[in-house]
Amino acid sequence: MLAQSAYGKSKVRLVKVSRRGDRHDLKDLTVNIRFEGDYDESFTAGDNRDVLPTDTMKNTVYALAATHAIAEPETFGVVLATHFLDRNRRLGRVRVDLSEHPWSRIILGDRESGKAFERAGAETRTATVQSDRERQHVGAGVKRLVILKSAGSAFAGFLRDEYTTLAETHDRLLATSLTAMWRYAHHDLDFGPTWRAVRRTLVETFAEHDSQSVQHTLYAMAQAVLDCVDAVTDIRLVMPNRHHLPIDLSPFGLVNQNEIFVATTEPYGLIQATLRR
Amino acid sequence: MLAQSAYGKSKVRLVKVSRRGDRHDLKDLTVNIRFEGDYDESFTAGDNRDVLPTDTMKNTVYALAATHAIAEPETFGVVLATHFLDRNRRLGRVRVDLSEHPWSRIILGDRESGKAFERAGAETRTATVQSDRERQHVGAGVKRLVILKSAGSAFAGFLRDEYTTLAETHDRLLATSLTAMWRYAHHDLDFGPTWRAVRRTLVETFAEHDSQSVQHTLYAMAQAVLDCVDAVTDIRLVMPNRHHLPIDLSPFGLVNQNEIFVATTEPYGLIQATLRR
Amino acid sequence: MLAQSAYGKSKVRLVKVSRRGDRHDLKDLTVNIRFEGDYDESFTAGDNRDVLPTDTMKNTVYALAATHAIAEPETFGVVLATHFLDRNRRLGRVRVDLSEHPWSRIILGDRESGKAFERAGAETRTATVQSDRERQHVGAGVKRLVILKSAGSAFAGFLRDEYTTLAETHDRLLATSLTAMWRYAHHDLDFGPTWRAVRRTLVETFAEHDSQSVQHTLYAMAQAVLDCVDAVTDIRLVMPNRHHLPIDLSPFGLVNQNEIFVATTEPYGLIQATLRR
Amino acid sequence: MLAQSAYGKSKVRLVKVSRRGDRHDLKDLTVNIRFEGDYDESFTAGDNRDVLPTDTMKNTVYALAATHAIAEPETFGVVLATHFLDRNRRLGRVRVDLSEHPWSRIILGDRESGKAFERAGAETRTATVQSDRERQHVGAGVKRLVILKSAGSAFAGFLRDEYTTLAETHDRLLATSLTAMWRYAHHDLDFGPTWRAVRRTLVETFAEHDSQSVQHTLYAMAQAVLDCVDAVTDIRLVMPNRHHLPIDLSPFGLVNQNEIFVATTEPYGLIQATLRR
Repeated sequence: MLAQSAYGKSKVRLVKVSRRGDRHDLKDLTVNIRFEGDYDESFTAGDNRDVLPTDTMKNTVYALAATHAIAEPETFGVVLATHFLDRNRRLGRVRVDLSEHPWSRIILGDRESGKAFERAGAETRTATVQSDRERQHVGAGVKRLVILKSAGSAFAGFLRDEYTTLAETHDRLLATSLTAMWRYAHHDLDFGPTWRAVRRTLVETFAEHDSQSVQHTLYAMAQAVLDCVDAVTDIRLVMPNRHHLPIDLSPFGLVNQNEIFVATTEPYGLIQATLRR
Repeated sequence: MLAQSAYGKSKVRLVKVSRRGDRHDLKDLTVNIRFEGDYDESFTAGDNRDVLPTDTMKNTVYALAATHAIAEPETFGVVLATHFLDRNRRLGRVRVDLSEHPWSRIILGDRESGKAFERAGAETRTATVQSDRERQHVGAGVKRLVILKSAGSAFAGFLRDEYTTLAETHDRLLATSLTAMWRYAHHDLDFGPTWRAVRRTLVETFAEHDSQSVQHTLYAMAQAVLDCVDAVTDIRLVMPNRHHLPIDLSPFGLVNQNEIFVATTEPYGLIQATLRR
Repeated sequence: MLAQSAYGKSKVRLVKVSRRGDRHDLKDLTVNIRFEGDYDESFTAGDNRDVLPTDTMKNTVYALAATHAIAEPETFGVVLATHFLDRNRRLGRVRVDLSEHPWSRIILGDRESGKAFERAGAETRTATVQSDRERQHVGAGVKRLVILKSAGSAFAGFLRDEYTTLAETHDRLLATSLTAMWRYAHHDLDFGPTWRAVRRTLVETFAEHDSQSVQHTLYAMAQAVLDCVDAVTDIRLVMPNRHHLPIDLSPFGLVNQNEIFVATTEPYGLIQATLRR
Repeated sequence: MLAQSAYGKSKVRLVKVSRRGDRHDLKDLTVNIRFEGDYDESFTAGDNRDVLPTDTMKNTVYALAATHAIAEPETFGVVLATHFLDRNRRLGRVRVDLSEHPWSRIILGDRESGKAFERAGAETRTATVQSDRERQHVGAGVKRLVILKSAGSAFAGFLRDEYTTLAETHDRLLATSLTAMWRYAHHDLDFGPTWRAVRRTLVETFAEHDSQSVQHTLYAMAQAVLDCVDAVTDIRLVMPNRHHLPIDLSPFGLVNQNEIFVATTEPYGLIQATLRR
């Protein structure tokens, strides 16, 4: 009757400052932990004997952050997942999701500050570790990466029915807030450089692609990652189409030379796909 | 290589006013449409020949809302799903998600206004229709149903490890923002009364349950729905634990007699399960 | 050089459960405290000698909530304001803003639960106390009161220039998310019934008014409050125009009989006024 | 009786692409317009004869964006304010608020893309123009500039009362999401370089200041702007204290060497001041 269940802690906010003399390093993470396993009795009978409190999961994040490096979220996710599996015999499968909030150093004239930072955007780097007693999957990703191109984007030749009013366009603005998630074939990786290579490939392909649709560009971006970064086994992209609609200036006696747009938030097209080797 | 793909339109905002003399009816929906099917060429080659624009999906929502009743979101979802499957030969599977935003009539002295309304909460009633060429699944749900009980909630007897600091409690506040989704065995239902029966069962069970944990109460709520509403085949509940922590007043020479709490938003426990007959 | 300054604590979340046998009362408040006074040295010289920490303000909210009734937010605001003025000689003026989040009792068959509650909407009741050494102003208000009327709303006969494209309408949907703030002439009031009288007057006037514009209805609503509730000395209303635009169905061979609308969030008209006796 | 009134349009979203061969420039603005003037009849009598629709305000933004440069938001604000004052004889005072959403060019290997962009943070550059028949005030600002320093921040020697539990600290994390607004003495400025000079001064002073409190640093930052940028006549800063609280690791047998913190969102201290020459 209990077909599926899970429990865990979400939105554990962790900031770690590593002090190396005059140069501090700042890591800012949000961590989610999810347990699945042989916990049916806790649901059906209120028997908590094998239930590790979600409050303890939170404490564990802070304690292990003090005793381990957290520079790469993937690595810290592996530490957490392994810890929980080792200690909880009823735990069948643990998932650790980490989001890293980016900070850059404040510039002081011609040098970087060692101890002061500014937030470098709403974009987050993500990492996911999923482990059971047999396997451990490590993945990474990006959320809220907002990108726009003002050339090289068309949408034409599409199916029309009696409810179709959309004009064909061969030169539209294309914008999205990209979510990408990918998985790695193995764990002995330099996670930081690999993450940056994937991100760079995604962004460069978006910029350079001769786009016939969001679908078309999404596929090109995912394929480029599989082509360029060997360690990636599969990748999923989710791309909302942040429509930028040209304003009709003709009532004012003006011609809109593809220059003036309204950025809209809803409704939006939503395109998603997973590519696997 | 293209392991999965989908495209569609999200957040189509639809308000319909049905005018019957001095009494208007108001329906306020947000509709999401998602297509899956034989659209690989649009991704791999930018071939849009079989791609119905998401803009057309939006237009279709408005056109069919004008020609059909939308009183029950489930029924309107079936109309939309059937329409899209009938017209799009490449479409293998369509999903329509609808959220209804509640309005109640403004009270004027001792009568209800026929034409003026106030928003009745942040909670939404949801409906989901998933159709392929063989089957059609109709489901319903509720989102952001915020409930709290100030008695009958314990959390004790749990597993402890070296990172456990949580105190046992036999009388805590229990609060959640409930998301529930359930599916129906068939479609010839009075969707409105059935939805209200499920909602009432969820809320009453939450209120009356002698809770040993969120897990325990979640299970009781889901089980009560399966027990009381025959048409439901399975139900999924997601319950974030909106922690209300007692304030330590002892530094001020006061005793907190389980009266004064801080409501917190993060971190939060997150409990979820699916029950099936 | 320091032309104005203030400091304080915002978003102190307070939940109080008053247990009277089987019937609990639940109050859920967010409290903001703001100090203004002779604190220039703390800004100019970093001299904290007379600075009460904002953390102490927060503690004070919880401690006084334990020792005082908080049933009416206005009364609790007066308690807090008076406390801070009495204890802080440099404090010239204190402002306490309180938002009450509404809960209603869960219905169990034909009776109300004594100990279980559901959130009754996104609307909040607000109260504001502003005190200096001479005077104390007590006010109240409402935020996020979302109301809509489907008849009795026109907008026509307006000024036109070369950039005007808006069609005149004699029957449009009118919707807003009302923010209202009003002040009382004195403090020996039954704050709860008075608040409800003001709210009822606002909502009823909105429903019944023959509206020529948002401005017109806003004024009628504010004037009705001054007419009906003696204790109110002045009232400010802020009304965003939540545009509901009729969909053009003519491309689909359909006529929109003022029935089908899209609810938009931006851009929005914003109308505001203060009426004083 | 009508003590104050205003009306206008908010959240007009404007994106302009200026195409200069292979290099496009992208400006992304949100514009708010507010009218105050002799519009009492529209409120009291529903007389719209002199009411320019807010829809026309929106159209005007797009039309003037097509015919004027919008590279500096201050300049475009002056264009809009002047236009509205010239055309609307009842308009006494107009306020135009502009927020610029930052984009940077996507990097392609060793060069910048001419036509593809990524969003450069959640921070916005703001500009405000307020004009009446006699004067025009031009100001600028920044919103959501999130900054943090991991050294050089103390809070000690403060006032204590019976509700004070806060520990003194001589080495805490200090973080804020800065809102700053300043006004210029005249309009024949290079608005872009001046804005960047103010922003740089704010951020550098935050980084280098030996902080005794948020108040202390806020004042130093504002004073530095008045010292370094002649064109600024007054400046207002609003600094929420985004508390980063050290985690107590002692229950786990660990010492927190000022390394592990939880970032909290509420409650928060809120400090604000205006400095004038």
